[in-house]
Amino acid sequence: MEAEIFDLVVAGGRLANGAAVDLGIASGTITTIVPAGTLSEEPRVELDGALILPGLIDGHIHLDKTLLGLPWIPHVPGASVRERLQAEKALRRSLPKPMVARARRLVELVVTRGTLALRSHVDIDQEIKLAHLEALLRLREEMKEVIDIQLVAFPQSGVTSVAGAAYLLDAALAAGADLLGGLDPAGIDGDIEGQLDILFRLAAKHGVGLDIHLHDPGELGAYELRRIAERTRASGLGGKVAVSHAFALGAISDAAFGATADALASADVAIMTNGPGAEPRPPVTRLAAAGVTVFAGSDNIRDAWSPYGNGDMLERARHIGYLNGLKTDAELEFALDLVTGNAARVLAFGDCRLVEGGRADLIAVAAANAAEAVAASPPRQVVIKAGRIVARNGQIVTY
Amino acid sequence: MEAEIFDLVVAGGRLANGAAVDLGIASGTITTIVPAGTLSEEPRVELDGALILPGLIDGHIHLDKTLLGLPWIPHVPGASVRERLQAEKALRRSLPKPMVARARRLVELVVTRGTLALRSHVDIDQEIKLAHLEALLRLREEMKEVIDIQLVAFPQSGVTSVAGAAYLLDAALAAGADLLGGLDPAGIDGDIEGQLDILFRLAAKHGVGLDIHLHDPGELGAYELRRIAERTRASGLGGKVAVSHAFALGAISDAAFGATADALASADVAIMTNGPGAEPRPPVTRLAAAGVTVFAGSDNIRDAWSPYGNGDMLERARHIGYLNGLKTDAELEFALDLVTGNAARVLAFGDCRLVEGGRADLIAVAAANAAEAVAASPPRQVVIKAGRIVARNGQIVTY
Repeated sequence: MEAEIFDLVVAGGRLANGAAVDLGIASGTITTIVPAGTLSEEPRVELDGALILPGLIDGHIHLDKTLLGLPWIPHVPGASVRERLQAEKALRRSLPKPMVARARRLVELVVTRGTLALRSHVDIDQEIKLAHLEALLRLREEMKEVIDIQLVAFPQSGVTSVAGAAYLLDAALAAGADLLGGLDPAGIDGDIEGQLDILFRLAAKHGVGLDIHLHDPGELGAYELRRIAERTRASGLGGKVAVSHAFALGAISDAAFGATADALASADVAIMTNGPGAEPRPPVTRLAAAGVTVFAGSDNIRDAWSPYGNGDMLERARHIGYLNGLKTDAELEFALDLVTGNAARVLAFGDCRLVEGGRADLIAVAAANAAEAVAASPPRQVVIKAGRIVARNGQIVTY
Repeated sequence: MEAEIFDLVVAGGRLANGAAVDLGIASGTITTIVPAGTLSEEPRVELDGALILPGLIDGHIHLDKTLLGLPWIPHVPGASVRERLQAEKALRRSLPKPMVARARRLVELVVTRGTLALRSHVDIDQEIKLAHLEALLRLREEMKEVIDIQLVAFPQSGVTSVAGAAYLLDAALAAGADLLGGLDPAGIDGDIEGQLDILFRLAAKHGVGLDIHLHDPGELGAYELRRIAERTRASGLGGKVAVSHAFALGAISDAAFGATADALASADVAIMTNGPGAEPRPPVTRLAAAGVTVFAGSDNIRDAWSPYGNGDMLERARHIGYLNGLKTDAELEFALDLVTGNAARVLAFGDCRLVEGGRADLIAVAAANAAEAVAASPPRQVVIKAGRIVARNGQIVTY
């Protein structure tokens, strides 16, 4: 073979099926998969038997909220979502470091941990207006060679209950937001159909998908899920709508769960979970068995909402697997799917399998197979985006 | 000061209250705490502003079960505890590597993660008899300079339902086990009073404490907790009895919880949790508020029961904090107590506060304070046991 045919050779890795392989990469694509020891071209990276997995995907993060890089800020509790919103806004005004500097630090952190695509919600409210969105659009451009960033215009303060919110969301979509967000139509706005009217109307106007935060509990939340499924079906948005958190799915009767899961599956509405701690949790395997696409995200990473979080999606898969009692190899592989294949489908990033012709977004870890990678969550030795090494051993490579 | 007065100077660290200090250590004790920059003696370790915390304590581990160091072994599910017991025994017979080699590897791993004392349950059954216990007693002796190990004679297969079990447990205590274990008096033996009769009789005979595995659910488990509390009170064993797991406390009415927590508190029976995933969880803050001592442990670390676990007790504190919604600094400090002060009390390892005259078991991490250390669970930079450096940056120092 001629030396110039590959931009990079990934040598001596193992695939999840155990095969020891060399990968030849050109123009961001895996063009050749051959037995280890076959390819001698430069430039190359030697994996010494490490396991190759697809790049990880964070399906739900808030880049504009993180406090990373600032001195420790103690959590200020709030009894209600509204109270915590006020606490967050007060904090936001007091921060010494520009949002985008903190966001950049977080993006660099997640890249070192193997996240190569993410969906970030971005606050749109009367105070911030489009400032966060515009800053993150610029950051996305700046970092496009190391990570794919999807931005959701997120009405953190409400939609129908906040004057001018629909106008701002419309402007955010015109300014380049990839999706429209929503938030607890009942719990925040007190107007389920009112909020959904606006969300589905703006989604249709701009040809974008939806990703709706839903913390509303129990039967109320389940009802809203079914309303979202019905509107998704009616508007032909199947495959482009996700509901994030959906705590309700973890705290309803079997009958209500069955009806709600069926509605979500037939409308092709996906469910995002981060494996919440104290709240009820969507049962990921039951949802998958019902045909619902489930994917995972970090949610808050050291921000006004939570002091926890580190952006490590392999650890997140482990966490969700642990919470859901996933133990067999097949179950652990399903946990990995939440942060790879399933997330890729929801984010419309296409097939992320490691096959000839596939996208050369991958990570290498010391593990025997995907099951061990999830259970042990070992450090990322090499992180490769579109055929370029972007991080090694926890350090980002200059971009 | 004279050079020979300290075995080690820990220089330039910070205490949880923010004070920048040098520690002088002699004969395993912190003899001097002075402002940073005061002590110039050698030998010394420079912490460069890292936070000093007490050595971590793992209150519940199974050193003899781990599969660490073996090639990946897929999990074999079992529908019941009895089925999983049979699967474990079949696996145990097939393992190529001696138990003690795996246990040593696990101990070394946890030491690198800052665990300087642990309580391990050790299977005692008709097949193993005292072999695991005797091997771990030797390992304890071999590693006594790097870690304190407490061994519980654990009837994993049952007590009254297994012929000769009481005899073996008696022999195990005579052979040097520090405590006596138990297991689901209802669920495994079908004889609550029968198992407790044997446990409390042998505890009295050998002058040891008890640590009883209790997975029995709901009202049944709560009833057993109250029976254990009553027997503890009657036998004067308060402060020497712990119940591990106690899932029941997470799945009973408020009234039953209140009565059970009060019984545990007044009898001084402690509760160990590892923050289970799919099972109900003891609510740690409600228990603490009722006066119950709560401590934490790893439980299974990659064994026949679970593919998860890594022996990192700071990460375990983070996990339990996350599951219980602990977010404020005070709440995060409480999570740390589960793996330091509270565990030290239960294991009778005395006061572990970092004060002059206190034990020189400590770790250093990059964090502003205890709250950040729990929320972020940063790597252990230095681990010091009884005034000797036993691990640095994830590597054990030769012992």
